[in-house]
Amino acid sequence: MKPFMDEHFLLTTDTAKELFAACKDEPIFDWHCHLSPKEIYENKQPRDLAELWLGGDHYKWRAMRSCGISEDYITSEKNTPYHKFRAWAQAMPQLIGNPLYHWTHLELQRYFGITKPLSPATCDEIWEQANAAINAGGFTPRELIEKSNVKIVCTTDDAADTLEWHEKIAADRSFACRVLPAFRPDKALAVESEGFAYWLTQLENVSGRSVNSFSDLCGALADRIGFFAAHGCRAADHGLLYVPFRRANQAELDAVIQKKQSGKHLTTEEADAFKTELLLFLADEYSARGWGMELHIGPMRNNNTTMFCNLGPDTGFDSIGDRQIAEPLSRLLDAMNTEWRLPRTVLFCLNPKDNYVIGSMLGNFQSDEVPGKMQMGSAWWFNDNYDGMRAQLQTVMNLGALGTFIGMITDSRSFLSYPRHEYFRRILCELLGDLVEEGKYPADMAFLTETVRNISYHNAVRYFGVG
Amino acid sequence: MKPFMDEHFLLTTDTAKELFAACKDEPIFDWHCHLSPKEIYENKQPRDLAELWLGGDHYKWRAMRSCGISEDYITSEKNTPYHKFRAWAQAMPQLIGNPLYHWTHLELQRYFGITKPLSPATCDEIWEQANAAINAGGFTPRELIEKSNVKIVCTTDDAADTLEWHEKIAADRSFACRVLPAFRPDKALAVESEGFAYWLTQLENVSGRSVNSFSDLCGALADRIGFFAAHGCRAADHGLLYVPFRRANQAELDAVIQKKQSGKHLTTEEADAFKTELLLFLADEYSARGWGMELHIGPMRNNNTTMFCNLGPDTGFDSIGDRQIAEPLSRLLDAMNTEWRLPRTVLFCLNPKDNYVIGSMLGNFQSDEVPGKMQMGSAWWFNDNYDGMRAQLQTVMNLGALGTFIGMITDSRSFLSYPRHEYFRRILCELLGDLVEEGKYPADMAFLTETVRNISYHNAVRYFGVG
Amino acid sequence: MKPFMDEHFLLTTDTAKELFAACKDEPIFDWHCHLSPKEIYENKQPRDLAELWLGGDHYKWRAMRSCGISEDYITSEKNTPYHKFRAWAQAMPQLIGNPLYHWTHLELQRYFGITKPLSPATCDEIWEQANAAINAGGFTPRELIEKSNVKIVCTTDDAADTLEWHEKIAADRSFACRVLPAFRPDKALAVESEGFAYWLTQLENVSGRSVNSFSDLCGALADRIGFFAAHGCRAADHGLLYVPFRRANQAELDAVIQKKQSGKHLTTEEADAFKTELLLFLADEYSARGWGMELHIGPMRNNNTTMFCNLGPDTGFDSIGDRQIAEPLSRLLDAMNTEWRLPRTVLFCLNPKDNYVIGSMLGNFQSDEVPGKMQMGSAWWFNDNYDGMRAQLQTVMNLGALGTFIGMITDSRSFLSYPRHEYFRRILCELLGDLVEEGKYPADMAFLTETVRNISYHNAVRYFGVG
Repeated sequence: MKPFMDEHFLLTTDTAKELFAACKDEPIFDWHCHLSPKEIYENKQPRDLAELWLGGDHYKWRAMRSCGISEDYITSEKNTPYHKFRAWAQAMPQLIGNPLYHWTHLELQRYFGITKPLSPATCDEIWEQANAAINAGGFTPRELIEKSNVKIVCTTDDAADTLEWHEKIAADRSFACRVLPAFRPDKALAVESEGFAYWLTQLENVSGRSVNSFSDLCGALADRIGFFAAHGCRAADHGLLYVPFRRANQAELDAVIQKKQSGKHLTTEEADAFKTELLLFLADEYSARGWGMELHIGPMRNNNTTMFCNLGPDTGFDSIGDRQIAEPLSRLLDAMNTEWRLPRTVLFCLNPKDNYVIGSMLGNFQSDEVPGKMQMGSAWWFNDNYDGMRAQLQTVMNLGALGTFIGMITDSRSFLSYPRHEYFRRILCELLGDLVEEGKYPADMAFLTETVRNISYHNAVRYFGVG
Repeated sequence: MKPFMDEHFLLTTDTAKELFAACKDEPIFDWHCHLSPKEIYENKQPRDLAELWLGGDHYKWRAMRSCGISEDYITSEKNTPYHKFRAWAQAMPQLIGNPLYHWTHLELQRYFGITKPLSPATCDEIWEQANAAINAGGFTPRELIEKSNVKIVCTTDDAADTLEWHEKIAADRSFACRVLPAFRPDKALAVESEGFAYWLTQLENVSGRSVNSFSDLCGALADRIGFFAAHGCRAADHGLLYVPFRRANQAELDAVIQKKQSGKHLTTEEADAFKTELLLFLADEYSARGWGMELHIGPMRNNNTTMFCNLGPDTGFDSIGDRQIAEPLSRLLDAMNTEWRLPRTVLFCLNPKDNYVIGSMLGNFQSDEVPGKMQMGSAWWFNDNYDGMRAQLQTVMNLGALGTFIGMITDSRSFLSYPRHEYFRRILCELLGDLVEEGKYPADMAFLTETVRNISYHNAVRYFGVG
Repeated sequence: MKPFMDEHFLLTTDTAKELFAACKDEPIFDWHCHLSPKEIYENKQPRDLAELWLGGDHYKWRAMRSCGISEDYITSEKNTPYHKFRAWAQAMPQLIGNPLYHWTHLELQRYFGITKPLSPATCDEIWEQANAAINAGGFTPRELIEKSNVKIVCTTDDAADTLEWHEKIAADRSFACRVLPAFRPDKALAVESEGFAYWLTQLENVSGRSVNSFSDLCGALADRIGFFAAHGCRAADHGLLYVPFRRANQAELDAVIQKKQSGKHLTTEEADAFKTELLLFLADEYSARGWGMELHIGPMRNNNTTMFCNLGPDTGFDSIGDRQIAEPLSRLLDAMNTEWRLPRTVLFCLNPKDNYVIGSMLGNFQSDEVPGKMQMGSAWWFNDNYDGMRAQLQTVMNLGALGTFIGMITDSRSFLSYPRHEYFRRILCELLGDLVEEGKYPADMAFLTETVRNISYHNAVRYFGVG
């Protein structure tokens, strides 16, 4: 029996262990996350482990609700941090095989030196030991980032964001990690939403342009892209419940804007046409800048209306959609490639039924612009577990060239989540170790160690041009 | 090499064996099956193994057809029970890796003490040995239920059923197993079907109410729910090819009823609105009673018109549908949760592409009403095999809290099918054993043995409130 | 550690090795491929390994593009065969876990006796050694087919094909392998395409009939089916992005033809009705001849318009579609079965999400016409890898009777691709070996060796009636 989560966690073969030894100290380039640049700049001392773990992590909230724990111990202010932590400790043993079980213990081990499993029996001991460590220092956002060997992070920033916090971080020479913005114009695309008009005024304010037509909007967004680029941005990012594809001409698009501005409800067709043409325009701009474009396809958000009214978005009430994506995605990428310029593109799917659709789609649009111009994003959100990460890697291997893969991201809001890169690297090395040990790939350790290092760090650096 | 299906069948690690030893003698609560309460009450002596195995098991019929065996040896009366059994013995070896192979041999071992593989070579010997055992007694429905350590079963009963057989069973104190009805109002929802009008008259008769409007229907069904509750019912159950979601007001719903009663063909939109609003009403009633609501999503039934005309439904001509379910299911559950009351709910999907959709949907609607209020049903029908059961458990583990899972059901029409619970428990214990032996979960055997016992029996007892 | 791709490649148990030893020398019946009968007849000496491997294999082209290799080294004439080969050698190590990695090395081992892994370091040595072997003889199409122990191949031939090359091959008694045509009327079904009218004139020319109505078309195609049958055809084949199902009467179908002939654009509904009714007619004809009908469902072709304009179809720009198939496929097969005659049918799905839909669909239409009348095609195209082949076999095992499976095809354009049968047989034997060694199936080696031989060759011979 292997000991619980020891140094060889997830590594069962000599080859896997050798490969992991070769890549575990590679730096981290976390090219997609939801860290707050404000929090990074302010660099506040956290109060306790409850704040670090339970302050904003809706993955944990959701798991607690699955165990029947009352909201009073989750998002409410009714209970103390200790009692919330205790509720989390009570949930913990139930989460057999859940990635939160592994992440929690990786974080306890790596940041606190605690190797005991968290449970109601160890709750108080761990609470005290962890809080003592926090109070002893080394747990501010910047300290956590630095001790995690993170060299570069890309945050996620609204297209109308002023990037003030990024400017402040960049001006502070004491922090070695590069914190780059990433351009996320979801609100620009959400023309059907109630908030669109308000967002548009924000865009007008920040860009100093008035937007009365589709080309005005494109112009303002192109300005913002330039502004983001001047702040070091190398990536854009779109969240899509489904992939729109409906063509329209300028007059039709102007009519959509005007209809929206007159307060009328848009049809799905109108909104899809708007989204499609705006995506085509934006992709062309990204390509011109050499940016990578990430498409995150498939989340169905805010499914629980009652809880959305109580707690707002990103509180643990999202799940996996199941639209058909193959045909619209093909046509969208083809239009980018044929009529405009297709940027280097990373396709993330939330529904694992789409793994092979995405994995085979990549091959339609590869080119010699860069190795692996078209990428399948690492296992994302609900798939960010042992099985899902393995399935994603197997998809890349079976349908593409693993050696060009740009690897892992945390997609996280937490400064403690970097061990997910370690988790990924272990899974990657175990998978390659299996291939070698089973005689399915030569034991060319020089090439394989270079490959795991590339996938851990260097491929992404080259891909996004941040080296 | 492990011996064929010995005591350690499916168990390869010491941990798995220890866990299985801890749960194998837990009783069975078979909270969803298709046993006939009439057959349980009448408790007839079976004639032979052909009657027990081949009398109504359309899984076996289907497998025989796959092997090219003539219908003359399947559903026809042309051949003797022995010749039908011989045809099944001929099919058997071809079913390499099929769950029927394992179920057949588990049943031979557990009920007859026969350990030889069934094949044309052993056909006659097994036929004689099994029939001798049957004739020696112990094979009536009640005897089989009792020797299988079944404490509670929920049958599947039409909403207009009189529950007369349940009443008779309940009145008979000699039978220790609790046989509870489950409320299955599929015919109430099938407003588009030819049989709806006829069924409605049955409902009117049994409820003593006349139904001329949607609210009449709701009232009659609420009466039936009360009647079922008075007979110990704790669960309702719906079979859905797809998930309807279309809202309508009372006037529109009344118009649907009246249109149907005038003999006109309903549009899909009309039928979907009717189904949606009726599901909302029923879910609220279930919630008020503390019942569990099961949704069985995805079967495409009676695909072979010729055979349907010859043999009727449930004869082995069903398969897996592939509609999109995520959005309508989300909105249906949200409407239940927001406007009405959402009962504890078990979502079964027939298409394994939906595993992750269901597994992530649960988290949108969990609450502190009960741990694991929203459940993913165990691997169902075409997924009720080693790979499918493992995939379902891995989905629950990756996306939820396995410790709260309410476990296995047979979904069967056969009194010999209880070893499927053993099959499930072995797979569960092997999976947990792997996690422990691979260092992915602590070797906390006290907690894990309690967990496998809970999943085997106690979680379901608590969930349905039948303790 | 197992050595890289040695004699026990993919075989880890004694049982698997014994089973593979029993079937490895069975002949090959490659009942679906894209070999050119003209090339078989002309039997030209190949120039070098670049021509054999890179002349037309769009799988390899696609993999090279994934590695960022310029089209100049792929389809262009700008570079020498050696430089193209070197580009392929450069891509090779990146393709960790890709089936091309295994196929490449199986081909080097089996046809050239080269056991070194191909990489930039070994590129020149392998180039010289392989070309020396080619120049020494034994690498013409017929020599490759014969040394691969191929007894029968079915090519893929347009319904309007004259079969002149098949006639020439058949007349040449010196070639022992039977080269049979397969009837592929995709162009007859593609009524919506620009090329339809031109193709129709080809059909009129070759059949000597003029086509002015739907029944004319049916008559001409029935003639072609007779002509193909006279040339030994035993299989028909359809490629379908999705499964059409829309009924129409003769007048409506005639109107579709006339509308098309007048140069007007057809609606999707019109085209679907045409396709549906033509499929029903054709299936009936196939059934009358005892042919097998193959439906290849799911490819989305020519996704990159720019490259399609440059290079045409079948150049590596196809991927996996994701339409819903369950309901239309059920109704199409049912209409064939109920109103016409349903032929023995092989359903291939390109999207692995459809594995269980197909696997369960089969059971709806099995009969005693032949064991396994309804077949799930072996893992196809993007699924033709270790994981995909294993998943397909597990689907067949879980949902059907593996013993009746008709096994592997290459689906290839290359005369070097026969080791894919070996690859399949190894995976099959490993899977059965696992079942036996894990105690999940009896160690009945007599039956199992017969079964692997049947799946390797004899089942297909019986199924297509070519014995």
